[in-house]
Amino acid sequence: MPDDGCVFCAIARGRSEASVVFEDEWVIAFMDLMPVTPGHLLVIPKAHAEGLEDLREDVGVRVWTVAHRLGRALRLSGLRCEGVNLFLADGEAAFQEVFHVHLHVFPRFKGDPFRIEADWQVRERHLLDETAAAVRGGITALGAAGGSGPRT
Amino acid sequence: MPDDGCVFCAIARGRSEASVVFEDEWVIAFMDLMPVTPGHLLVIPKAHAEGLEDLREDVGVRVWTVAHRLGRALRLSGLRCEGVNLFLADGEAAFQEVFHVHLHVFPRFKGDPFRIEADWQVRERHLLDETAAAVRGGITALGAAGGSGPRT
Repeated sequence: MPDDGCVFCAIARGRSEASVVFEDEWVIAFMDLMPVTPGHLLVIPKAHAEGLEDLREDVGVRVWTVAHRLGRALRLSGLRCEGVNLFLADGEAAFQEVFHVHLHVFPRFKGDPFRIEADWQVRERHLLDETAAAVRGGITALGAAGGSGPRT
Repeated sequence: MPDDGCVFCAIARGRSEASVVFEDEWVIAFMDLMPVTPGHLLVIPKAHAEGLEDLREDVGVRVWTVAHRLGRALRLSGLRCEGVNLFLADGEAAFQEVFHVHLHVFPRFKGDPFRIEADWQVRERHLLDETAAAVRGGITALGAAGGSGPRT
């Protein structure tokens, strides 16, 4: 499902400029143009996939594996790196802006500008249990939809 | 490297209450006690690992694979889910609070309370290229340190 208008497909095909740190047959990793911190990387599959729904599971594993190694490599890079975040946004409501799935990997250090906010409150156990039951229903539905569920 | 004081090890061993949605030999997934949104899940390895450094690569792949499927299951769960975020914090500077590696998977919807902030600015290409060279140095160092680099 290649997308000729997709900026990440253009990078994957070598048609658009990028500061690449790694590539193989399945994935390519390059510097984010608007980094949270210096060293902010994106790992993407070369084959177009919009998000988690259409990302092949084996290709997703490759994206993850490269991100895991790059997270470790950042600590050895000489760049300021006291911690590492991995972040993936699947869907506009989740802050996805480029609709070619990408896993962010970025170094963190004390005083850097990255912040997250939420209305964190302890949720009662009976509500957590109800929610868990709903998620298990989703797992079953995923299996029934022809996907391979987590139990396989 | 089990840690008897670790709250996630206690959950993995069934010694502490949790609203579990999935488990197998290697990983367990359960509801976050202080969810960003209802449906917020944590996927953890059962064997204690603090972060990306000491997480076995094959176990990490299992954590990812389960998270990928749970992200899809959330959309089929009946819970409000217009998007999904995956988030991992490796190290205190990256906002890690429980030092047993965990991958967050949470549903998103318009108007939910989750926000991220940073000082996003386009970085000049020559700086991106310099940073990429540093990361490639880190990849080489990782390989030299006995880790398997991304190119293997």
